[in-house]
Amino acid sequence: MTADPSSRDEPAGTSITDADPRPHVVVLGAGFAGLSTVRALRKAPVRVTLVDRHSYSTFQPLLYQVATGALNPGDITYGARGFAAHTGAFFRKGEVTTVDPATRTVSLDVGPDLHYDYLVIANGVTTNYFGVPGAAEHAFPIYTRGEALAVRDRMTGYLDRIAATGEARGASVVVVGGGATGVEMAGTLAELRNTVLPDRYPELDPSGVHVVLVEMTDKVLPPFAPRLREYAAEQLRARGVELRLEAAVKEVRPDSVLLADGTELAAQMTVWATGVAAHDRVKGWGLPQGKGGRIVVGGDLRVAEHPEILVAGDIGVIEDDALPQLAQPALQTGRHAGRTIARLVAGEPTERFHYKDKGTMATIGRLSAVADIAHGPKLTGVLAWLAWMLVHIFALLGNRNRVMVSLGLAFRYLAQRRGVMVVGDD
Amino acid sequence: MTADPSSRDEPAGTSITDADPRPHVVVLGAGFAGLSTVRALRKAPVRVTLVDRHSYSTFQPLLYQVATGALNPGDITYGARGFAAHTGAFFRKGEVTTVDPATRTVSLDVGPDLHYDYLVIANGVTTNYFGVPGAAEHAFPIYTRGEALAVRDRMTGYLDRIAATGEARGASVVVVGGGATGVEMAGTLAELRNTVLPDRYPELDPSGVHVVLVEMTDKVLPPFAPRLREYAAEQLRARGVELRLEAAVKEVRPDSVLLADGTELAAQMTVWATGVAAHDRVKGWGLPQGKGGRIVVGGDLRVAEHPEILVAGDIGVIEDDALPQLAQPALQTGRHAGRTIARLVAGEPTERFHYKDKGTMATIGRLSAVADIAHGPKLTGVLAWLAWMLVHIFALLGNRNRVMVSLGLAFRYLAQRRGVMVVGDD
Repeated sequence: MTADPSSRDEPAGTSITDADPRPHVVVLGAGFAGLSTVRALRKAPVRVTLVDRHSYSTFQPLLYQVATGALNPGDITYGARGFAAHTGAFFRKGEVTTVDPATRTVSLDVGPDLHYDYLVIANGVTTNYFGVPGAAEHAFPIYTRGEALAVRDRMTGYLDRIAATGEARGASVVVVGGGATGVEMAGTLAELRNTVLPDRYPELDPSGVHVVLVEMTDKVLPPFAPRLREYAAEQLRARGVELRLEAAVKEVRPDSVLLADGTELAAQMTVWATGVAAHDRVKGWGLPQGKGGRIVVGGDLRVAEHPEILVAGDIGVIEDDALPQLAQPALQTGRHAGRTIARLVAGEPTERFHYKDKGTMATIGRLSAVADIAHGPKLTGVLAWLAWMLVHIFALLGNRNRVMVSLGLAFRYLAQRRGVMVVGDD
Repeated sequence: MTADPSSRDEPAGTSITDADPRPHVVVLGAGFAGLSTVRALRKAPVRVTLVDRHSYSTFQPLLYQVATGALNPGDITYGARGFAAHTGAFFRKGEVTTVDPATRTVSLDVGPDLHYDYLVIANGVTTNYFGVPGAAEHAFPIYTRGEALAVRDRMTGYLDRIAATGEARGASVVVVGGGATGVEMAGTLAELRNTVLPDRYPELDPSGVHVVLVEMTDKVLPPFAPRLREYAAEQLRARGVELRLEAAVKEVRPDSVLLADGTELAAQMTVWATGVAAHDRVKGWGLPQGKGGRIVVGGDLRVAEHPEILVAGDIGVIEDDALPQLAQPALQTGRHAGRTIARLVAGEPTERFHYKDKGTMATIGRLSAVADIAHGPKLTGVLAWLAWMLVHIFALLGNRNRVMVSLGLAFRYLAQRRGVMVVGDD
């Protein structure tokens, strides 16, 4: 395989793209937004290069199940190369270092630059520590596959250690952030404490293991309907989660979390689930950024100053109308971005993006969830949990993952022997 | 949880074992041998502590499927704590540092010592580099879960890199050792090169990717019947594996393997599958050791000088009758060791161990395997492959793993879209 000098902008030796006359669309990010962009471009007369720092796409809504040991990382990741192969796109593995709108160039940490005719920025956001001292150093986010595994291994490693040494230490996990991720994490951890711990760690006293959920506002799941929020809070309490509402985190320390009111909560592990922001690197791209560093685009998802650049997913914000940073807006903006490029290539005018809110859901534990279906019923309990299972399993890319996740969750929630745990350390 | 000063030999605060009058059996190793020992002791009037450095048991015969990306590590590992909980045993996570037969003490890297009335040494063996220069530094064994993951990530990471940079380098994998592991690894890698690579890495030229199998003797799968050995060799060649028989490895270098005859084989990755030996640490335990450092025991699996110490699995050798280091001998010696202890506790005489050879099998690739069934037919091809699937799936501990592995392998070998690959890096 030798580099093709005639096309410095191509991954070398790519016979499939050499001297391809079609417009080149570069899509940054293989998440919900990026993949749906590529899918929407499948039949368009363009050449697509999908870029991601990982060779797989991660199904983020189920990362907390990996962090708590019900699912294997491979079950919620999907090979980006396989996806590209089946959509006629080209995959390039690398981390984006700079985007230069002037020269229409994307530089990566590995290999030659990419030149684009159209660029779709869909590489998402990263954990936002809001400048809380110690958070970046000591708290564990669960936003990527690697982070979820780190949480899992830290948790089991710690329990194994205190079980072996019998040190008279409790084990407290503090989850910061009462949104869907925080609620799902805290609920699942408490359920593990109640069902799995007594069976797997008979030498530990479950009452010495605490799960605390810290939320700055006066409620969990703020975007949900009041009845669902109350159900969630009550279900968390029923599982023994210590809810601390209207509590702001002042500092995260190696073994504790300091609240604004001076309270110091013991925390062998602090899980950070408060929010996200664009990566600092984006600042250098010369694009308009709004709250949380999100790139500001027009109603058709294009950047005003650079109409050949479109933005989809968490990293974008349409003028002042900030969509929730969830799977649905990412999928829908991605699809619209792809279609917009197809229209531009066909010489048609672009159309305004309209978000179709399908509602939101969150699971608290076994057979317990809340589902706030837009223009539909507000479900709680088993029904909501089944709805959650269906939606998540059918949203998964690939039959293999669908089957594996269905079974992994079935074993966790329904198996006779409760609480299967995939253990992580090598 | 506070340590109980009255019993220094207990994992502290273990109410379930405090002041337990029953003889204490310590089982080292949660592999095939150790688990079957614990199972055999299930109804005996003894107290059992199972010790392993990992909190899971690894199903080693399928590690090469993890190394080649068909299976998730969690699919072939089984929580040791869950196993202990269901057999009434106690699990202690830790690495054995020393065994002192004089004081009947086992010391671990973490936590208090364990004192035993009976000890079963079943903690297996480790990779044997036979003192080949560079092997330990540059070759990749696939004997543990962590090692299998390292092989997978090294392989995909390298392919991703040359795909991104287009460097005119080939990719060669040299597998050292023509036993079952080496044959299965080489065959699977060649099949991936033929079926998955063109689809996932269109920018790479499959003919630039080589798989070489190096074997010191003049045949692959030495223990198998001649017809099966020939079938295996022919199947490997049909998949494009370069077979190098009667070739001794003189040195392993970062990017190549040097043979005794002076040939230097390019090798971006060298997989080491030549054999195993007892860990050096065992030398310090004052027990009789034979070839490969294996602990020498009598016909009833007890150490002559220390009849309260039994040995099972790969790490043991019965006088001069060395059993193959495979799953069956491990399972059978483990069961016998457990039963022997039960007899001793009941004041009965011990019995001699008799190995029931059930035969051996190895898979070369999709729908292709060899099965040498003792006192039975010698199978090749699809039949052997189906036999291999059945035996391995039913031998797996736990329904979850059985289901997950069946499906994982089904997707790899039978799915419409060939060659599913679980990708590894974070």
